Amino acid sequence: MENIFADRINDVPKSFIREILKVTVQPDVISFAGGLPNRDFFPVKEIRESCCRVLDESGKDALQYSTTEGYEPLREFVSKRYADKGINISPDEILITNGSQQGLDLMAKSVLNEGENVIIERPGYLGAIQSLSIYKANFKTVDLENDGPCISDVKKAIESNPKLFYAVPNFQNPSGITWSDSKRREVADVLAPSKTVLIEDDPYGELRFIGKPQESMKKYLEKNTVLLGSFSKIFAPSFRLGWIAAPKSIFEKVIVAKQAADLHTNYFSQRVLFDYLRNNDIDKHISTILAVYRKQREAMVNAIKKYFPEEVEFTEPEGGMFLWVKLPRHINSLELFDIAIKDKVAFVPGDPFYPSNPDKFTMRLNFSCVDEATITEGIERLAGAIKSVM
Amino acid sequence: MENIFADRINDVPKSFIREILKVTVQPDVISFAGGLPNRDFFPVKEIRESCCRVLDESGKDALQYSTTEGYEPLREFVSKRYADKGINISPDEILITNGSQQGLDLMAKSVLNEGENVIIERPGYLGAIQSLSIYKANFKTVDLENDGPCISDVKKAIESNPKLFYAVPNFQNPSGITWSDSKRREVADVLAPSKTVLIEDDPYGELRFIGKPQESMKKYLEKNTVLLGSFSKIFAPSFRLGWIAAPKSIFEKVIVAKQAADLHTNYFSQRVLFDYLRNNDIDKHISTILAVYRKQREAMVNAIKKYFPEEVEFTEPEGGMFLWVKLPRHINSLELFDIAIKDKVAFVPGDPFYPSNPDKFTMRLNFSCVDEATITEGIERLAGAIKSVM
Repeated sequence: MENIFADRINDVPKSFIREILKVTVQPDVISFAGGLPNRDFFPVKEIRESCCRVLDESGKDALQYSTTEGYEPLREFVSKRYADKGINISPDEILITNGSQQGLDLMAKSVLNEGENVIIERPGYLGAIQSLSIYKANFKTVDLENDGPCISDVKKAIESNPKLFYAVPNFQNPSGITWSDSKRREVADVLAPSKTVLIEDDPYGELRFIGKPQESMKKYLEKNTVLLGSFSKIFAPSFRLGWIAAPKSIFEKVIVAKQAADLHTNYFSQRVLFDYLRNNDIDKHISTILAVYRKQREAMVNAIKKYFPEEVEFTEPEGGMFLWVKLPRHINSLELFDIAIKDKVAFVPGDPFYPSNPDKFTMRLNFSCVDEATITEGIERLAGAIKSVM
Repeated sequence: MENIFADRINDVPKSFIREILKVTVQPDVISFAGGLPNRDFFPVKEIRESCCRVLDESGKDALQYSTTEGYEPLREFVSKRYADKGINISPDEILITNGSQQGLDLMAKSVLNEGENVIIERPGYLGAIQSLSIYKANFKTVDLENDGPCISDVKKAIESNPKLFYAVPNFQNPSGITWSDSKRREVADVLAPSKTVLIEDDPYGELRFIGKPQESMKKYLEKNTVLLGSFSKIFAPSFRLGWIAAPKSIFEKVIVAKQAADLHTNYFSQRVLFDYLRNNDIDKHISTILAVYRKQREAMVNAIKKYFPEEVEFTEPEGGMFLWVKLPRHINSLELFDIAIKDKVAFVPGDPFYPSNPDKFTMRLNFSCVDEATITEGIERLAGAIKSVM
């Protein structure tokens, strides 16, 4: 059956991370490889209460088919939360999706023809590389500097008339880098005269534990920005609830794609989430998560400073779940992985975060789901592995 | 922004049914237009118990990210249920999807190149026409006779080397028609020498209230059959839980497509469903639903016989949720709809169930979510509308 497949699927590799995670599940391995929120802070009791309330108060309705757009009060909640940040998005421009990953898939499905150009950060989010690859995107990468994309790279890329620019401006996965306000303005200036649609994916935006929030790109590039958001990191990943916020003309097409893809998003879960949001203080819950992640991030940064050789560079993210490490140019992170796993510590080599020509001397470390003492122990082990190669 | 869209999305119309349903939600309209299960028989209390049990026993795990393939015990349940019917499918060949609609989308994404041929029944399932249209399928229709597809049509269609044959052999939506065993064997004989993959979509298979079950096409065409299934009609639609069962070589590609589409299906809902299945007798629950639908179907058939003019033809389905009406050749069902809605009764005109050259003198009637007395009343109203046109 080798020959029956669509061209679009033949070139997409199985997820590298999925394969890596299989190696790292052994209980004695300290894993910085995953990208999971810390499960100790899921609001289990409150979700239980919401399940019961929804089923007691409107069980039959909550179990029936529903609209493609999503549960209206939940869309209003998202709209209001944008309004609180000064961003004007009507509930009618918000579609509830199976996580923000689906928002990206539906956008690509709606606008991307085979071989069209798409700008993506270098390194970039692996899930986006996969999803866009299926639609045969031709990637134009722009280097990520410490404060956002290299502007001359963006200028050069925009000359190719790309359909999309996919970016994670806040605490990017994998790098942890946040675009500065000035970089945001500069990118908007470059994109403004073009037809390129910027997709601002912001799964980690609420997870800022240091410094002040930047403005959304929607502020600088209102007409041509599509926003992706997620409840996975602040509520519960298993609910697979995110959204896409798109101008009406795009929204109409994305709805068609959504309906063809799966009719609508799990409605019971939308009802439970909204009940939770109405009866609990989500900001208080977020601040609990932030306090934990801030400490874990500090533990990782401190341990790196203490144990890693001086030649190793790394980012110090102001939020999110990841930091990014640049090894000396003779240490291939794929080879380091094999040594590290023997020392019972795991990470994700940088390789899969590049659509082509990977920087092989990089790696991603996750700090959100390992406690502080374990982080320190794991970084010490990893330092040992690095030193053994040097 | 008119010109930014992908070719694939530009040709796909907004769902006709969605538009119609907007007209039919007025409370005094008797609607046979929807395709909803009867909400009075959703197991609300049992689902509440399962939500609590899952969260009490393994809340943190049930709220975390999970595997792309789906919850292993749920996949084993589906595998075992196939085994009970004599169909051998390993849990490793089963992917849990957001309803069976997503199974179709992922299959099309994985195997269909632009312009490739796809066989579909005439009339055919609207959701499939939409989903396949997005991948630019070139439809080859085969007429549905009362016992399944016209075999000479299938023979002719197979000459075009179609990639896929999408079919709903049990209580088809929209027609209510079930393929006979002999038609199944004949179709399998025609397809066996070809590379065409048959997608057997079976959302209504468990809803047989008259007669004996037929064998799955998987029995007759083992290597080239992919099965789609759904818990929407026997458990709860809002959970959006279905599956795709595909031979390993196809499965590997579908997994890549699924991961790029949305990482994985709502895991909390998978856990709740499995808990429900473990602690309740699903077959007993199905028999409760069947008893109701059988009576409602009888009420509709009897009312049609009593009130409709003799010239009107209609199917008498042995299961499922729909029956199909052929009006005399001078009564256009789109025009009839406008008259009927004034008489406060609604249906779906046959038009959207044809990828091209619609039979304009047909309509779909749903009997699953209206009680017997209301069905009789609604059919009487509809008969009045038909007679007023004749």
